[in-house]
Amino acid sequence: MTAPIQAIRPKRTIDDLAIFGGPKLFDRPRPIGQLDLPDEEKFFAYARKIYESGCITNNGPLVQTLERQLCELHQVDHCVALANASLGLILLMEALADGRRGEVIMPAFTYPGLPHLAQWAGQYPRFCDVDPETHTLAPNAVEAAIGVETTAILAVHQVNSPCLIDELQAIGDAHGVPLFFDSVHGIHCTYNGRPLGSFGRAEIFSLHATKLLNGFEGGYATTNDGALADTLRMKRNFGIDRSGSVATLGLNAKLNEAHAALALSALDDQEQIIRRNRERVEAYHRHFAQIPSLVWIPYRGTRMNYEFALLCVDPQWPLGRDVIVSVMREENALARPYYSPPLHLSSHCPPGMVPPHLPVTERLARGIIQMPVGELVNEADIMALAELMAFLFSHAPEVTSRLSRQ
Amino acid sequence: MTAPIQAIRPKRTIDDLAIFGGPKLFDRPRPIGQLDLPDEEKFFAYARKIYESGCITNNGPLVQTLERQLCELHQVDHCVALANASLGLILLMEALADGRRGEVIMPAFTYPGLPHLAQWAGQYPRFCDVDPETHTLAPNAVEAAIGVETTAILAVHQVNSPCLIDELQAIGDAHGVPLFFDSVHGIHCTYNGRPLGSFGRAEIFSLHATKLLNGFEGGYATTNDGALADTLRMKRNFGIDRSGSVATLGLNAKLNEAHAALALSALDDQEQIIRRNRERVEAYHRHFAQIPSLVWIPYRGTRMNYEFALLCVDPQWPLGRDVIVSVMREENALARPYYSPPLHLSSHCPPGMVPPHLPVTERLARGIIQMPVGELVNEADIMALAELMAFLFSHAPEVTSRLSRQ
Repeated sequence: MTAPIQAIRPKRTIDDLAIFGGPKLFDRPRPIGQLDLPDEEKFFAYARKIYESGCITNNGPLVQTLERQLCELHQVDHCVALANASLGLILLMEALADGRRGEVIMPAFTYPGLPHLAQWAGQYPRFCDVDPETHTLAPNAVEAAIGVETTAILAVHQVNSPCLIDELQAIGDAHGVPLFFDSVHGIHCTYNGRPLGSFGRAEIFSLHATKLLNGFEGGYATTNDGALADTLRMKRNFGIDRSGSVATLGLNAKLNEAHAALALSALDDQEQIIRRNRERVEAYHRHFAQIPSLVWIPYRGTRMNYEFALLCVDPQWPLGRDVIVSVMREENALARPYYSPPLHLSSHCPPGMVPPHLPVTERLARGIIQMPVGELVNEADIMALAELMAFLFSHAPEVTSRLSRQ
Repeated sequence: MTAPIQAIRPKRTIDDLAIFGGPKLFDRPRPIGQLDLPDEEKFFAYARKIYESGCITNNGPLVQTLERQLCELHQVDHCVALANASLGLILLMEALADGRRGEVIMPAFTYPGLPHLAQWAGQYPRFCDVDPETHTLAPNAVEAAIGVETTAILAVHQVNSPCLIDELQAIGDAHGVPLFFDSVHGIHCTYNGRPLGSFGRAEIFSLHATKLLNGFEGGYATTNDGALADTLRMKRNFGIDRSGSVATLGLNAKLNEAHAALALSALDDQEQIIRRNRERVEAYHRHFAQIPSLVWIPYRGTRMNYEFALLCVDPQWPLGRDVIVSVMREENALARPYYSPPLHLSSHCPPGMVPPHLPVTERLARGIIQMPVGELVNEADIMALAELMAFLFSHAPEVTSRLSRQ
């Protein structure tokens, strides 16, 4: 982490808080995305190859190189590069449903969008509760929800833990229901020592700029199922097979050479990014250690990417989670309530659905703050945030009182 | 058009034809796409701005600049940049259907893919015949097909002619059915002197590398309907509105800064590309003039972009259209049967649909060859193709006889 380059203005009285009109703690926003741009010259060197080959899209040489390197990274047989991860999830759900309209089991404690993706694939979301330790799909909840209408189980690896893969796979196998993974937060992570990417029927990863491996936008599917990989290759290209005939429902979901150029440039930097991510998370732990009733969500798994710093605020903390987030955002620290509201209680829930009661999900969604991280946040920023939190802890009654009058 | 840089090998006997084992007419393929890569340094200058701004996607500054310039180009109020034109068509059909599952009226004499796009939007394609002059949706066929189940009319501008817009709009208005346009081939074209882009409820354009305006991949919607533009902006970003709530079904269909950088670099070159396209089409007319029973599909409209050279082979020509195409492709001239088979008789037709009889479409689909064009084809290539066709005309019985023995 580099030295601070922007002024940080500590708080002495509550008038100094930006929410009460004081100067912002940070001149410029401190976001929550990874936002690492790969080395400019390395990207430009790859981009010049596009001009040399004259091949721009439609499974060009850089896309093919990227797919090969990602197969190695994930120790998996097939990688299918895609325009983005959302399209990958839609195509995969549609492929696994095999013409049926049914339900896809998914967690509600995850990022917005998943229920819509199921709908585009002609499926209906079926929300299940999560495990209190890993925050991933709870096997007993999946077992209770699975039925003849289930077309797939969509398990989402969390940043703090991979899914309970063996248990979920056993349930899927017992019921003959395909299991697949949203692995957007799982790149470079392992489960029982094996890289994520070859579990279930397939896994879907992201190349979005806010993610670890930055390809501007983009995504990819990994699988050891050759027939499924072929199907996804056809679906990303209007459903057209090698002979030029239409063999399956498709659209345009191709990754082009520019995205592949940036992603290839980014691949070399991954170890360093993860090291800096870990340093950032450890700096949070260190500098926040003296503030009572705050717990950092621990990382589980043998190898993780430390993409997020997730702060759990105890209900006995003198200010509520959402108040803390509002105060921080005014200071240009773009913290967010983490996965809150959960999907089943949000506007992403399909109209007319009676939301299930998901106690673990609902408890988790009340208490966690996603703290600023990524390449635009350094240790001085984290120290300043710790000071801000300590200040809020000791001035909570004053803050509450002033807020109630605003 | 520049001088030939690759060997052209004329044919003296039918043994010289590549289909019979002779050397290929062209060393390297002569394709049918535009494939103009904008000036490298101009692109790199825009791409460096991405590094300067640190903004990569999610409605970045280059995308906003591109949208403004496209509004000017099309003389339209709103432009919504999208990851590709297919996604634009899906989102627009879904938006116009407003939650209904119904039929979208569309031509069958067009490029593959449209029926699938309707299906992703929860709609069913309803194929209508085309007008024999413009090759676009025939108003009387639309009038006959429209009904309570119609959610939209999707008219496709042809490269040789814009749609019969006024007549289609009158039918849409009379029935209260929205009309919109696939304008992938309509960039820089006019209808009654007004640029395409502001007709119907919206128009969808492409930024694919094979199209006039090359943004690697990408597309955009244009409309004078501010509410519809807002809806499309939400739909391209997971359905999220300005307040951060989900207001409509959405997915990730954002254009990113790399695409915008290439498209901006390409915008300046458009007049020159169109001039070269026109020279190429005129060269085809000139060099093919002496060969009997061949007609070039004329360009209609006050201003056109001359993207394609479409050769109509009379049924009395001594070789069939598909034989000519096979011979040419073996010579590395990547000609194609144009829109053949038509969609209603192809594997793109939804399973179970009884194909309608569309006589004009079926006649057109039997006779037209899409000839090699774009920046990889020069006048010497066209002369060589004319010589090849003259050779085929005079050696047709020998060719037919040899083919029947192969």
